[in-house]
Formats: sequence, C-alpha cells, structure tokens
Amino acid sequence: MDVRNDMDLKQRLAEETLKIDRIMRDDLAAITDTLDPQLAEILEYGLFAGGKRVRPLLTILAARMCGNEDNGVYNLAIAFEYLHGATLFHDDVIDRADTRRGRPSVQKQFGAVAAILAGDFLHAHSMALVGEFAGVDGLSLFSQVTRSMVDGEFLQLRNASNFNQSEEDYFLAISGKTALLIGAACELGALFARAQPGQQSALKTYGISLGYAFQIIDDLLDYQGDAQLTGKGLGNDLCEGKMTLPLITTMQRADAADKQWLVKTLENQLQRQQKLSQVTSMIEKYDGFGAARNKASDIINKALDALSRLKQQSNQQSFEILHGLAHYVLNRSN
Amino acid sequence: MDVRNDMDLKQRLAEETLKIDRIMRDDLAAITDTLDPQLAEILEYGLFAGGKRVRPLLTILAARMCGNEDNGVYNLAIAFEYLHGATLFHDDVIDRADTRRGRPSVQKQFGAVAAILAGDFLHAHSMALVGEFAGVDGLSLFSQVTRSMVDGEFLQLRNASNFNQSEEDYFLAISGKTALLIGAACELGALFARAQPGQQSALKTYGISLGYAFQIIDDLLDYQGDAQLTGKGLGNDLCEGKMTLPLITTMQRADAADKQWLVKTLENQLQRQQKLSQVTSMIEKYDGFGAARNKASDIINKALDALSRLKQQSNQQSFEILHGLAHYVLNRSN
Repeated sequence: MDVRNDMDLKQRLAEETLKIDRIMRDDLAAITDTLDPQLAEILEYGLFAGGKRVRPLLTILAARMCGNEDNGVYNLAIAFEYLHGATLFHDDVIDRADTRRGRPSVQKQFGAVAAILAGDFLHAHSMALVGEFAGVDGLSLFSQVTRSMVDGEFLQLRNASNFNQSEEDYFLAISGKTALLIGAACELGALFARAQPGQQSALKTYGISLGYAFQIIDDLLDYQGDAQLTGKGLGNDLCEGKMTLPLITTMQRADAADKQWLVKTLENQLQRQQKLSQVTSMIEKYDGFGAARNKASDIINKALDALSRLKQQSNQQSFEILHGLAHYVLNRSN
Repeated sequence: MDVRNDMDLKQRLAEETLKIDRIMRDDLAAITDTLDPQLAEILEYGLFAGGKRVRPLLTILAARMCGNEDNGVYNLAIAFEYLHGATLFHDDVIDRADTRRGRPSVQKQFGAVAAILAGDFLHAHSMALVGEFAGVDGLSLFSQVTRSMVDGEFLQLRNASNFNQSEEDYFLAISGKTALLIGAACELGALFARAQPGQQSALKTYGISLGYAFQIIDDLLDYQGDAQLTGKGLGNDLCEGKMTLPLITTMQRADAADKQWLVKTLENQLQRQQKLSQVTSMIEKYDGFGAARNKASDIINKALDALSRLKQQSNQQSFEILHGLAHYVLNRSN
C-alpha cells in the first residue's frame, strides 16, 4: 500500500469514525432525555473517550462489501460499540482497573455500582438495536457471542494460575474474549445486507481471524510495546501471571532448567513484578515473540484470503479499507 | 375464595412451578454442556434456590387468558426468570448482600466477579429467548423494561439520602424496579398469544398494578413482617435509610416536632439501627402503615378491574389463578 493510499485510508477512517460518533449521539439523545442524569453522564463519559470504533466500522464495511448501501447499517453497527462499552465497564470492575484510555475508568470515576448498572443498560440497549436492525437471526448470533465472551472470561479465571496452558487453551480464551465478537461484527453486516451464505461465511472468517491477530499482537505489545505509544505500562500480563502466546511457546520449548526457573518465577507474584527483563530475555532465547508474530501473520493471511474471495469491481473502496485494516492490525505499534 | 378453590390454586401453582423448573433445566442443559463448568455450577446454584417463579407464571397465564394454549410460551416465560436471576446476581454485588433466600448469595459463594459475569450471561440468554419466542416487538419491550430497571436503580441511588421524597418519587423508583417488569411479563404473554390490543393493554395494567402492590406490601413487611415467615430480619430499609411508603406518608403528615425528630433519626446511621421500634410507633401514630395498605388495596382493585374485562367462559381457570394471585399479593405474610 503506497503512501497516497495510506492517506486515503486514514481519511476515510476518520470520516467514518466521526459519523459513527454522530449516530451514537443521536441514538443516545433519543433515549437519554428520559434517563436519570447520572446515567446519561456516565454514558457520555464512558462511550466518547476516543475509541477507534473498529467494531462498528467492520459491520458497516461488511455490509458495503456485500453491495448494501443502506445507512440503517450504522444503527446496527453502533450496537457493537455499546456492547464493547458494556464489556469494558464490567471488565474494569472485575479487574479493579482505575485507568482506561489514559483517564479514570468509569468504575473509578462513578463507582463500581454505577459501572455495573450502566453496563447492564448498554447491554440491553445494544440487544434491542440488533433485534430491530438485524432481526431474530442477528440477535441470536449477537447473544451467542455475548455468552461466549462470558464463558471465555470464566475459562480465563479457571486458567489463571495454570502455567502449563496449551496453545489451544489460549486460543479458546481469546476467541471468546475478542475474536468471536469481531467475527460477529462482520457477520452481522453481511446479514444486514442479506448477503449470500458464502459471503457471510467469508466475512465471518475475515473478522474472526482479524480478532485473533489483534489479540496476539496486543499480547505481544504488552512485552514489546512502546509505553509512550500504547499508553499502558509494560508487563501487565506477566505481573498478573497471565499466560499469553510468547510465554506459552517458551514454556513448551524451554529446556528443563529454564522451564523450572520460569515456573518458579511465575508462581511468585513479587518475582513476576521484578523479573520482566529476565523473562523477556528468556522468551527471546526461545523465539517466543517471533513465533507469536508468525502465528499472527499466518492468521492475517487467512483473513486476506477470505476477503479476496469477496472482491469485486463495485466494492473496491471497502475492500481496500478492510485490506488495510488487516495489515494495520499486524503492524500496529499502539 | 373458599378453601376448596384455595387448594386448587395451590395445587395448580405447584404443578406450574415444577413445569417451569423442568423447562429451565432442559433449556440450560442444551447450552451448558459447552459451558465452563463453574458457570454451569453458578447457574444451577443461583437459579434453583426455591424461587416462586411468579414472573414466568404470569407470562404463561396471560397467554392462556388470551386463548393461547401453545406450550412454546414456557420458553418465552423462563426468560423472565433468567432476567430476574441476572438482576438478583448483580443486585447482591451492588448491595454487598451475603444472603439470598436463606443461604449464601451467588456473590458470597462464588465471588463478585463470577456474579457479574453470570448475570451478564443470563441477561444475554434471556434476550435471545425473547427474540426467538416473541419476535422483535417482544424484544423491544423486554429491553425497554431492563433499561427502566437500571434507570430506577439510579433514581434510587440519587434519592438515597433524600428524606423528603415524594410519593411520586417512590412510585417512579418501584415502577422501574418491580412493576414494569411484572407488567411486561403479562404483556409478553399477550403478545405471544397474538392478543387484541385491548387484551394486551388490560394484561399490562393487571401486571403493573400487581407489581406496585407487591412492592408496597414487601416494604410494609420490612416493618411489620414476621421474621420467621419472611426469612429476613426487620427494619432493613430503615437501617439503609431507604424511604418507603409508610415513612414517606408519615413525613408528610407529621407535625413539626415529630418531623424534626424523624429527620434527625434518619440522618444518623447508628440511630436508624437502634430506633426501629420508635420509628414504627411514629409511623403507627400517623397511620402510615394503614395508608400504604389502602394504597396497595386500591391498586389491586385496579388490577382486578382490568382482569375482569378479560374474563370468558373459556379462560375461567387462568382467570381464577390470576384473581387469586392478586389477593395473595395483598394478603401475603411472606
């Protein structure tokens, strides 16, 4: 992708983000005039903190890829941003996270009670939107994804102190947490567009693959990112004892002595906090980062394969954005 | 209602409760075999602790009142029990309640994180059921009710230390918290039955009125109940500084000196805990309990009025149960 195209992509993304924000504001205005003022304030605070709106964008582009130009898709698309918001509100209560996107999280700013309730509100509202704009089939899919997200969280809780997790466990957890939702964002765009089954399934594959790769890279950036760019400190996952792909690969590849050292380090919370650079070196020794990046790259190729099956003269512009997004997910530094 | 009828009512209710439980178990079995074992355990623990299944029962009876005998209504009806469960899981996190129905609450037994997640799961699943069995119109109504519940909670939070609440504030809060949901349980039964608009609206009125009266009596029992029968201690609302109808009426009727004493007592948490019997005497002095009971009785008459408009030869049995339920709500002691 040359520089001019990259500028086009950024321009188009910025325009879409603004439009998504506007549709969200209109939609919330229609319901919040009858709402408790604090709830309205939380929604404003929690939903407009500079999110990238990737999920709704995918729904819109998926519909466009299938030849649908109806603007009603925006009202379906924002359901994914609301569900994402509901998840973040609840996640921050669950993780007792005080910061989100560089400022106090909803639970820090308004309290855990308000965060739970506002999440429930968004959850209900997002499902009503999906029912209205994607019918019962869309709702069934959306609800299935929400249930998988919860199920993924339970799996993660259960695996919390299991330092011998397999790659399969990891992919199962991130499928519930990230990939299925992103797959559903694409699939519902296709459903909205009344696409052919083959188109719907290709968009689902694209979305799920994008989601997997996104999470793998996210987990890589937790070790290798530039804190200035990501806005997060490094080593959070290690500190929490969370097993991500680089570490899982390293545990599998390490010789007996190194593995013993790793397990001992992981089992001790204080050690985990202090030994980030040693653990990072150990992962480098066994090329755990390279393996994870290769895996993400393979998965992105799968996404691009699926996408290329949908390419037509008439959807060139949407194709290029989705193509660009796949590359961005792999190469992003924040 | 004579004794024979009362026995019939109890018998029929017991049968319906068993059937509702069975449908819930079948429904959960169909989804829980793919679930994380802890989530499945929480659902079993939290949903089968001896609830009365009033909400699903209302949906079923409402459909029957409109001449519908389709057993699919059970699958719609259990959505209300799931939503109710989701609400209780989250409420117990919010109130930090350790006990529910005489044993550890879900959040006490499994932790707040698990309670939030399991509530989210049930919430998503309940909405999918409503979409499947009552279509998009049903879902829109169901979602509206959920949003009102959250909104009612925010109103209650905001009114928490407002000892000069009006009757209107009280009814607004309990409409969100209880009445609209019970109204929706009835209305969705009518919707499922493809009832006439007049029938649907009469069942909604019946349900909302039943819900209001239920909550008023619940609040009365918090002062006047027999702890042995209710399974709860007395004076919880007073202790939390929660203004319910008897106290609101008393504040309105009290002379200057009594009102001053009441406000002083309410403003001090320790006083609230210690002065239950004096506050109870004060409410009795101004007939606050009598006023609340009269209000509940007026509302139940409204419910019975609406119900009588639906009475036909063919729905005699369902009519009698709904009639009996209205009387039970008013006269119950637990």
